[in-house]
Amino acid sequence: MYGEIIAIGDELISGRVLNTTSTFVAHRLTLSGYSIKRITVIGDDISDIRECLLGSLERCSFLIITGGLGATADDITNEAVASALGLELEVRQELLDKIKECGHRCDMAGGSYLQKMATLPKGAEILDIDSNAAGYLLNYDGKVLFFLPGVPSQLKIHMEKQVVPRLEKLLGPGQLVLYKVFKIFGLGETEINQKLEPIESDFPDVQIGYYPNFPEIYVTVTVRGKEKGSDIKGIFESACDEIRQTLERDIVAEDRESLEAVLGNLLLEKKSFLAVAESCTGGLVGQRITSVPGSSGWFECGAITYSNKAKTKILKVPSKIIEQHGAVSEQTAKKMVEGVMELGGVSFGLSLTGIAGPTGGTPAKPVGTVFIGMGTPEGVFVERFLFPGDRREIRLLASETALDWLRRYLKYGTNIPGYRPAKGFD
Amino acid sequence: MYGEIIAIGDELISGRVLNTTSTFVAHRLTLSGYSIKRITVIGDDISDIRECLLGSLERCSFLIITGGLGATADDITNEAVASALGLELEVRQELLDKIKECGHRCDMAGGSYLQKMATLPKGAEILDIDSNAAGYLLNYDGKVLFFLPGVPSQLKIHMEKQVVPRLEKLLGPGQLVLYKVFKIFGLGETEINQKLEPIESDFPDVQIGYYPNFPEIYVTVTVRGKEKGSDIKGIFESACDEIRQTLERDIVAEDRESLEAVLGNLLLEKKSFLAVAESCTGGLVGQRITSVPGSSGWFECGAITYSNKAKTKILKVPSKIIEQHGAVSEQTAKKMVEGVMELGGVSFGLSLTGIAGPTGGTPAKPVGTVFIGMGTPEGVFVERFLFPGDRREIRLLASETALDWLRRYLKYGTNIPGYRPAKGFD
Repeated sequence: MYGEIIAIGDELISGRVLNTTSTFVAHRLTLSGYSIKRITVIGDDISDIRECLLGSLERCSFLIITGGLGATADDITNEAVASALGLELEVRQELLDKIKECGHRCDMAGGSYLQKMATLPKGAEILDIDSNAAGYLLNYDGKVLFFLPGVPSQLKIHMEKQVVPRLEKLLGPGQLVLYKVFKIFGLGETEINQKLEPIESDFPDVQIGYYPNFPEIYVTVTVRGKEKGSDIKGIFESACDEIRQTLERDIVAEDRESLEAVLGNLLLEKKSFLAVAESCTGGLVGQRITSVPGSSGWFECGAITYSNKAKTKILKVPSKIIEQHGAVSEQTAKKMVEGVMELGGVSFGLSLTGIAGPTGGTPAKPVGTVFIGMGTPEGVFVERFLFPGDRREIRLLASETALDWLRRYLKYGTNIPGYRPAKGFD
Repeated sequence: MYGEIIAIGDELISGRVLNTTSTFVAHRLTLSGYSIKRITVIGDDISDIRECLLGSLERCSFLIITGGLGATADDITNEAVASALGLELEVRQELLDKIKECGHRCDMAGGSYLQKMATLPKGAEILDIDSNAAGYLLNYDGKVLFFLPGVPSQLKIHMEKQVVPRLEKLLGPGQLVLYKVFKIFGLGETEINQKLEPIESDFPDVQIGYYPNFPEIYVTVTVRGKEKGSDIKGIFESACDEIRQTLERDIVAEDRESLEAVLGNLLLEKKSFLAVAESCTGGLVGQRITSVPGSSGWFECGAITYSNKAKTKILKVPSKIIEQHGAVSEQTAKKMVEGVMELGGVSFGLSLTGIAGPTGGTPAKPVGTVFIGMGTPEGVFVERFLFPGDRREIRLLASETALDWLRRYLKYGTNIPGYRPAKGFD
């Protein structure tokens, strides 16, 4: 017993708009234990919608169809469905009244536009008459079809309040699903896969997935069981524990946590504050840190010293050092982190200076060269890295490496970064 | 003659990962004048892949299949394709050598893992042997099938360098498509729609689309024609000119430009430098600015003064002002921008201080309250804003409003921001 999703819209099929709604629907249903086997995206075309709908009905037991329920000329879902299933269309007065009320409130165009939105296939059960947007359910040939608006905010409310509860009533509750994400930095996908192979063999009922979410690799652990209360939970916890022991310090965060939030909690435990000095990342590290609510409890300040003058003036990097070794050098990174820790009066600091490209590289210091400094009460550590990729990727890798390095230092007392430093230079 | 896209991956079908690759492929092909009629997403399941592939082959003339080409156990595209099309699998030595070389460089696991990646269906034409990731082409039953890696960065390179040129060679050029994006900030979607309605009527052959790309609204202009050299180009240019005249200063950028790059060019023209002082945005403005290659030609430095102490120490905001008016106040924003301009020795500055939430709001200064200061040779302007949304949205709106305000000032000589300031306070 599984479901399919059909998303309708020219803006989706032409790639103008990212199809976030199908991803949301699939994720929400998966978490409730329902399995989705196919997502199909088609344009605003009656015969395509018909063909796609009839194809899906041959395979699945429930269907979620999104989009094409609006008032404009390209909204043709209701017409296409009626034609595909041999149903008549009828104006639903209770819906029309509601739409007019709302349309009036929203200064929308009246008349035939609105009537169109209230013209549904015969037998449609309106999901929530008080909702802003119409959505409905059709029972057809023993299958359940949900028709939902394509607007993400409206769709999410319908999914939560209508679709999931109704599916549970109509088809019975989904399988129990236990799910965890480990976020990994410092290991490649195949390295992780190799390390976890024994665990995959030991736990045949546990599904382990790997997918890159740059610059991290996500490892997902899923266990499904038919009955609640069986030993699924024990199996799940054991597998997760073994993964934790195996990947240990390369796990930067779990589930909804982020690396920056984990780092913040470690600093909070130590009642310590952090300051950052950024050149090539230009504020990215600060931005990531301050995306965490409550980061004012552990983040003091940052200096975006993009020019050499700013490095000297704000961070007191001696201009002699910049002249002698360059702005992108171990010595400058060291002075930068010392300068920002002094400025903020804090016990932990990070500094980044490098060449993010696309220009500015030299044979001795190619694009991707970044020096990262980590200041601690034990002293300052500086490492040279060579990050691959374009400007965006180099900056992301540099910020991740810096934040992760301090996390490892605080959690494991090591000054070895997770990302491998560049060898064979200097 | 049209195409379909099949995206393979459990992470996609379970909604764990947003399917950005299919959107990219569809958009890229649409821009080259090829029509995509269906995108299908399925999991890592051999029989599902088979069924889906055979179904698509019955309908379309070319197919793009993404994902499942990697080295891990769940990568089964090659196997599924060989089985569906009745082809044998064979190890491609030239590919294996390349993969081993790269794997060695990346310290990847060797052996059978890598061999799997080089085992392709018989007849596969490798797209680019020098690429980091394998991709290949199959001719089958008069149709063209492209198999591409699911990793977005690799896929994009293959699309640009291999798929589009090869499609043009194999199927002939697509329809002539002229396409432009106007990026709008300061107007809502319905406001824009209303303003452009007369243009939509005047140009029936021009398709105008609206879609939000927070915090901007994108207006797309598309004209398609069968023959190159017809008057399509004139019609397209006229429509674009009218849109430019109608939306004028609310257009922050066009096509691939970003607001920050446009702002940079205006500063470059004036041979002027910018410095930013950020509190609630915590580096976001600096990060956006420095995402532009060459921003060192117009960006001097930034100060992320998250704590009050940092505002006083780095930016010389008198502590009396913070005590009297609060860190989130017009007076503090003014002193912050003055301080950072002094620090950087520059003629233009931006400052942001506010409450991004979720906590920290008060009845007098609710969450979303942000004071933005703009420093210019004419003097300093400060406005109070009340941005809606969550922490992420408030920060994005604040950064966009600040950058856009300076753009308007430099381009139109106005000190009126595009986003409406908050009224009824103080």
